[in-house]
Amino acid sequence: MPASYAYLGPEGTFTEVALLTLPETATRELVPYVSVQSALDAVRTGEAEAAFVPIENSVEGGITTTLDELVAGQPLMIYREVLLSITFALLVRPGTKLSDIKTVTAHPAAQPQVRNWLKAHLPDAAWESAASNADGARLVQEGRYDAAFAGEFAAGRYGLEVLESDIHDAENAQTRFVLVGRPARPAAPTGADKTSVVLWQRDDHPGGLRDLLGEFATRGINLMLLQSRPTGAGIGNYCFCIDAEGHISDRRVADALMGLKRSCLQVRYLGSYPRAEVTPADVDPLRPGTSDEDFVAAADWVARCQDGRF
Amino acid sequence: MPASYAYLGPEGTFTEVALLTLPETATRELVPYVSVQSALDAVRTGEAEAAFVPIENSVEGGITTTLDELVAGQPLMIYREVLLSITFALLVRPGTKLSDIKTVTAHPAAQPQVRNWLKAHLPDAAWESAASNADGARLVQEGRYDAAFAGEFAAGRYGLEVLESDIHDAENAQTRFVLVGRPARPAAPTGADKTSVVLWQRDDHPGGLRDLLGEFATRGINLMLLQSRPTGAGIGNYCFCIDAEGHISDRRVADALMGLKRSCLQVRYLGSYPRAEVTPADVDPLRPGTSDEDFVAAADWVARCQDGRF
Amino acid sequence: MPASYAYLGPEGTFTEVALLTLPETATRELVPYVSVQSALDAVRTGEAEAAFVPIENSVEGGITTTLDELVAGQPLMIYREVLLSITFALLVRPGTKLSDIKTVTAHPAAQPQVRNWLKAHLPDAAWESAASNADGARLVQEGRYDAAFAGEFAAGRYGLEVLESDIHDAENAQTRFVLVGRPARPAAPTGADKTSVVLWQRDDHPGGLRDLLGEFATRGINLMLLQSRPTGAGIGNYCFCIDAEGHISDRRVADALMGLKRSCLQVRYLGSYPRAEVTPADVDPLRPGTSDEDFVAAADWVARCQDGRF
Amino acid sequence: MPASYAYLGPEGTFTEVALLTLPETATRELVPYVSVQSALDAVRTGEAEAAFVPIENSVEGGITTTLDELVAGQPLMIYREVLLSITFALLVRPGTKLSDIKTVTAHPAAQPQVRNWLKAHLPDAAWESAASNADGARLVQEGRYDAAFAGEFAAGRYGLEVLESDIHDAENAQTRFVLVGRPARPAAPTGADKTSVVLWQRDDHPGGLRDLLGEFATRGINLMLLQSRPTGAGIGNYCFCIDAEGHISDRRVADALMGLKRSCLQVRYLGSYPRAEVTPADVDPLRPGTSDEDFVAAADWVARCQDGRF
Repeated sequence: MPASYAYLGPEGTFTEVALLTLPETATRELVPYVSVQSALDAVRTGEAEAAFVPIENSVEGGITTTLDELVAGQPLMIYREVLLSITFALLVRPGTKLSDIKTVTAHPAAQPQVRNWLKAHLPDAAWESAASNADGARLVQEGRYDAAFAGEFAAGRYGLEVLESDIHDAENAQTRFVLVGRPARPAAPTGADKTSVVLWQRDDHPGGLRDLLGEFATRGINLMLLQSRPTGAGIGNYCFCIDAEGHISDRRVADALMGLKRSCLQVRYLGSYPRAEVTPADVDPLRPGTSDEDFVAAADWVARCQDGRF
Repeated sequence: MPASYAYLGPEGTFTEVALLTLPETATRELVPYVSVQSALDAVRTGEAEAAFVPIENSVEGGITTTLDELVAGQPLMIYREVLLSITFALLVRPGTKLSDIKTVTAHPAAQPQVRNWLKAHLPDAAWESAASNADGARLVQEGRYDAAFAGEFAAGRYGLEVLESDIHDAENAQTRFVLVGRPARPAAPTGADKTSVVLWQRDDHPGGLRDLLGEFATRGINLMLLQSRPTGAGIGNYCFCIDAEGHISDRRVADALMGLKRSCLQVRYLGSYPRAEVTPADVDPLRPGTSDEDFVAAADWVARCQDGRF
Repeated sequence: MPASYAYLGPEGTFTEVALLTLPETATRELVPYVSVQSALDAVRTGEAEAAFVPIENSVEGGITTTLDELVAGQPLMIYREVLLSITFALLVRPGTKLSDIKTVTAHPAAQPQVRNWLKAHLPDAAWESAASNADGARLVQEGRYDAAFAGEFAAGRYGLEVLESDIHDAENAQTRFVLVGRPARPAAPTGADKTSVVLWQRDDHPGGLRDLLGEFATRGINLMLLQSRPTGAGIGNYCFCIDAEGHISDRRVADALMGLKRSCLQVRYLGSYPRAEVTPADVDPLRPGTSDEDFVAAADWVARCQDGRF
Repeated sequence: MPASYAYLGPEGTFTEVALLTLPETATRELVPYVSVQSALDAVRTGEAEAAFVPIENSVEGGITTTLDELVAGQPLMIYREVLLSITFALLVRPGTKLSDIKTVTAHPAAQPQVRNWLKAHLPDAAWESAASNADGARLVQEGRYDAAFAGEFAAGRYGLEVLESDIHDAENAQTRFVLVGRPARPAAPTGADKTSVVLWQRDDHPGGLRDLLGEFATRGINLMLLQSRPTGAGIGNYCFCIDAEGHISDRRVADALMGLKRSCLQVRYLGSYPRAEVTPADVDPLRPGTSDEDFVAAADWVARCQDGRF
């Protein structure tokens, strides 16, 4: 029986398309779940080997359901990320013309991405929300609505026609997905990696967060995401989800994490994994004094000083 | 004709209850709107004098719809904030007993707050989402569902009975609302104020955000909210919504804002206003060297040095 | 009666040579004093318009006598600096040959600069200290010693011959001199200026000095000198003499000084003056956001925010 | 043949008195040297086991001759420090009365400490410099001057009488002496230790020195001395002699040194040794997160994260 990957369903959504870009899916059973929470729970209970869920998109920012699930509960770890450009197709039953469309549907998250296009091309069409973009396509197939915004790939599955493709209000609209599993040794560094952590500040005083960010800054580590999430201890109490450049096996990252561990009330490690669509050649050169060699040389020097041999 | 306040409707929700705590609502027409966006647009177009919307809650954190509306478009300004504790009542048609309840409804945002209570008291009841808590109550009135979670205040409006009150999974569940208007001179400082801004970093380098936060830290200014929001320029591009202690007429705050204005690509000022439920006596004492007097004395000293009189 | 400039005497020393590079000395009476203290006292009492004294050299660092005089007592101000390369000549009575030299003399401060030359060329000569290099030359003239190290310019005054010139162990040996007067409006900025201050920390805690230096760093201001001097309050109690790039009429410098004035127990302004041997073209370009225009624009923006016009 | 300690002579000076406070001097031959340089050279050549020299005093600050010798040349290490309060006695030949005194002598360094006393009690006495305070006493013994300022302990050695004791212009005048040897394993930590290093900055940019000091500050390490010394590479080029709280075997100190080693062009370790006149009870409590246990726990946590066990 093959190991299974849970993912945020239903079938026929952008999540499934992104998941299929991972080569190992060929040998995994892919199981849709109705929510991020249920997909991640499947990992926690051992029902699934891993779960594939959206974590950030360029319109909404960090996806709070996913972040909140990673922040709390039994620890999980991110092993992979996938970036997917999000553009919509307008799907109709074969033969439908633009002028025939009176009602359109899609998941509410699609709305900000197609609003301008609608205003320009279908100013009078009524909008109805669907539970997912795939579900919207199904409802068009069933004749309930005239057109659905969905990924172009959904057309075939629901016997629909692509009337217009590549619809997107915002340039560069992308969603980032992550493959999440139970804690284990992180994948080996590739030279273009990312490390995710959650920080809880020890106390709140002017400069507290600045000093925590300083643990990255003084080691020349760029941040890619800083997302605050409520701790549940009342309004104004936040923890911080942070994505930083580099891999926990890089000495500068390990050293920054140690500094954070000492300074923070709590730190949760969420994994180190290859950056999607970034090669080692794209990564900024290291700041002088922050390479592994520099760390080793410095530790060696201090050891020699401690021993009186210098 | 009285000036009107737009608010996120419908009537009978927590937003309306929070709004009614503002004394001046006695002399304003209060107009419910279907979305945060439409309420704020009513202010921008001049249709309403101000809009009252939720901006942060202790379960979800910053409310992104509201933040995104404030971050972009024609500038708006926050004039007031209200904190409301959120506890739910279970509303039923008169005569309904707990054992009669097969279906319950509420806005999806209520779910995390009542989940444990449901598991303990109504493990078999089916959950149905409503468009708002008030709408859920209406659907119970109409007999569509057996019970609704809503604010206790909604019972009377819909002819329902409170079967259970003060239901809340998380202690200290609170929502923060703000009254937003067109830019004008901020209200006078009270000694317990808050200043809201949005920052766009000039460029992204290790330490960039740390240095921006340093503008607050070096002047002894505490932060109460740091919420990243996508800029729309592609994944990983964020601006930062920040709430800081103090009023723009405090010299330390004005000075920090000047530093940010110089260092950032862009800064949007969102207002200075009294902190809800905090009195000047609750505010941390100023760090030495950061009072208005200290700023005036320092400016005076530099002027005398520039003039050779010291 | 012409205004007089006091200088550290006697005549015929490097100090006098440096002083004579100032054009206005043509119209001033130049009066040698026996010590830095007496020269500066002459300014404080009004006996002299200004005093010209060494303040830093590339071998000894900050000249503590001068710094201590500027740090304490009635305030004084630096108006000009002069850099002089220090190389020695070996002066002898006419006719003396290298092989005739059994004794050499000079001020003790010359010794580190000529030690290697002596070892190579006059390994057996006995060293005798003189009160000044000029005095050493006089003693050679009187026949008391065979040779003196002094500035080449001293030869004529004492009827001596230059046996060897351009003697210097360290490359780039330079001394920096300053012209000090009573406080008055600083000279206009030239685009390549320097500002000198003395800082006393408010209290001693980890990071105290770092934070003070941060007032310069966050405004992109380079430091050229950081010299600690005891405060007199017991061992380990220091104030800091700092030379920073820029002029007090530069907004970034004025702003940094205001920050220091607020954060420090005490700040003493020692003047803003043109950098010797540096032209505006040599100065590093300003860090973005730190030009006068940036400061003015930021102040203007905050004023408009305070007024509700933005 | 006993091991010998070199010290800055001659006999009968404050240096010798301070040296004699070290218990092990009972079993060492104590050899006076004419200069700090020659005493330290005796250590470098193996002629002496250690050298005892002044390094800082509360009037003059860091003693540059000593610092420059430690900064350059073959590495040396500090093993011990002694603090000595400096007060002077006025020594005369037996029978001399205050009114008989026409000439006084002492080492020039004594002058700032007795200037006010002289002005009040012997306003007309002529001052003559001596090569050391002990030498001044000898010259009084020989009848060349009428009185000498020296340590009271010098009276017996030179057959003089103490006419007045406890003379000191500045309260708390102290000199700090250090015992310097060849590099070896530092003494075990006592809980009240000090670590000395010399730093050379990699390059000079705004904030460079601030960032180096940040390596101490972020680990809660207080600085006790920051003394700049010229590097010899021309005016304005400095290295920094730093005394920091703690011992190199303290994790926070070792960690800070590693950070400095990576960030600096060069670091020279000068030793970790007990603080004179400070007991562990006097030392500030550690900042949270900086104890050895915190460092060990953090390193352990990172190792477990790297291994996927957390």
